[in-house]
Amino acid sequence: MVCIVTGCAGFIGSSLVDRLIAQGCRVAGIDNFSTGQHQFLEGALKNPLFRLIEGDLLDLPFLTQAFFGGDMVFHFSANADVRLGTEHPRRDLEQNTLATYNVLEAMRANNIKQIVFSSTGSVYGEAAVIPTPEDAPFPVQTSLYGASKVACEGLIAAYCEGFDLQSWIFRFVSILGERYTHGHVFDFYKQLKTDPAKLRVLGNGKQRKSYLYIQDCLDGIQLAVEKANDKVNIFNLGVDGYCEVNDSINWISQTLEVQPSLEYTGGDRGWIGDNPFIFLDTQKIRSLGWVPKASISEGVVKTVEFLKSNEWVLEAR
Amino acid sequence: MVCIVTGCAGFIGSSLVDRLIAQGCRVAGIDNFSTGQHQFLEGALKNPLFRLIEGDLLDLPFLTQAFFGGDMVFHFSANADVRLGTEHPRRDLEQNTLATYNVLEAMRANNIKQIVFSSTGSVYGEAAVIPTPEDAPFPVQTSLYGASKVACEGLIAAYCEGFDLQSWIFRFVSILGERYTHGHVFDFYKQLKTDPAKLRVLGNGKQRKSYLYIQDCLDGIQLAVEKANDKVNIFNLGVDGYCEVNDSINWISQTLEVQPSLEYTGGDRGWIGDNPFIFLDTQKIRSLGWVPKASISEGVVKTVEFLKSNEWVLEAR
Repeated sequence: MVCIVTGCAGFIGSSLVDRLIAQGCRVAGIDNFSTGQHQFLEGALKNPLFRLIEGDLLDLPFLTQAFFGGDMVFHFSANADVRLGTEHPRRDLEQNTLATYNVLEAMRANNIKQIVFSSTGSVYGEAAVIPTPEDAPFPVQTSLYGASKVACEGLIAAYCEGFDLQSWIFRFVSILGERYTHGHVFDFYKQLKTDPAKLRVLGNGKQRKSYLYIQDCLDGIQLAVEKANDKVNIFNLGVDGYCEVNDSINWISQTLEVQPSLEYTGGDRGWIGDNPFIFLDTQKIRSLGWVPKASISEGVVKTVEFLKSNEWVLEAR
Repeated sequence: MVCIVTGCAGFIGSSLVDRLIAQGCRVAGIDNFSTGQHQFLEGALKNPLFRLIEGDLLDLPFLTQAFFGGDMVFHFSANADVRLGTEHPRRDLEQNTLATYNVLEAMRANNIKQIVFSSTGSVYGEAAVIPTPEDAPFPVQTSLYGASKVACEGLIAAYCEGFDLQSWIFRFVSILGERYTHGHVFDFYKQLKTDPAKLRVLGNGKQRKSYLYIQDCLDGIQLAVEKANDKVNIFNLGVDGYCEVNDSINWISQTLEVQPSLEYTGGDRGWIGDNPFIFLDTQKIRSLGWVPKASISEGVVKTVEFLKSNEWVLEAR
């Protein structure tokens, strides 16, 4: 069995690669290193079960060749920066929607029938129902990132129907932990390293968000792939709760032993398309037996500790 | 006020053009005539209120120029053939998703703030709730066509949030009437013209579908644009009922005074991704005072009569 992992040098992708090869699976990893990090593959590259294929998902002939011999695709490559959508509206379209179309076409060309996809809780927009279940009311998109992931989900489901694929689609909250390379903990850590006495916070700090630790995330993905067997399997993944941005600031400050003064940019949203309250209903994945082991605060602390030990990632992008 | 109509030589687009210029509105119509018909613009082209701009929505520099001076965009250009998605998977992506992205970018470049979009009831996939309301449970796509229109809706909504646009998105059942150039009435008429004694029917004929007459459709669109003023306004449009494909065959046969023997290809779906039961809840648009005037059977008969008087369209594509 050969698993193909796109975005294999990214935060989630590289963590999955390590886990898959530890489980004895052969893995072909694809990355263009636009945001992926070679260092995240240091361990994998020493293992004969892993093969790195460097290239861009937007290059369909390349991708079709790269997928040769694969049995299952973990499509984890993405533009994952929700915030900058309006600055670069084409980026989400290309790196998410068009890249996913190419992944599906390359699968079709190689007769690969199974795809695991990292979607996002952002597809719910500003959800009318919180905690938000997978069958929440048809959402209205509020970010180009969410819109692009909805487009990917639609393409994947249509390919499942039209070309007899099987898919597992995961709508994540934000993921935390080792190899985390963007998001609020990253931004706050970077600011506090420059000036531990001051922290600029987008919005009013009262945005309520949910997070999940990377290893819990991967546990959920692997359990669902093993146990759920519909044509299209959609699962929320998140902890059973949420925190305020201000809570997270406290955990970060305590771990770093700093007491910054806080400057809020104001408003209930950190940026255009920011969702002031994200909290997913995870009954469906829990019914398969999944329970996340790390709390949000533990996830934040683990992330800060990773950043402390790996400050190179602060400058790596 | 200059209205831009994309797909201005198409079935719905050209019907809207005629109505807008009859109402005294200046209209810039864009079409690449891949499926549009010059004949549908014969009247409009005689009217100084109308200007035709020939070109392709996939050409963003062209489109950005074409949108100059526009106040509102009716984006009605699309690949509207649901059935052939799996034969040409790239077509829905390009002609729907990417074309809509370009429309939004050309609007942004020209500071045009309002867009009216022809979506589809196909975005509901195989709906869990029938009649299906606009806030039905988050659907799973079953066709590349539906997936591409969901992608368009997501892009439009994200642009409304990110760039302060306003949108009216209409999820249609199939539209019938004058200038109808594809769909089951078209296919059946064409078959019966070749051999009035025999009709090949995709599926078992028991698929339940809803239809709407073109002028009722345009009434609904114009009423909603006038009365609904949210940032993103989403409306189903359809009659308050449905028919079986077999009913439609009877109306067509009666109008043409033929009695074909029927050959069913079998199964409850006419093609991959066909939805065996489409029936939309139209309470929302009805609450604004809209009532469709033509029944499904009247729509079918009007369509057959149009085709009888305009047999050139049978060969025009």
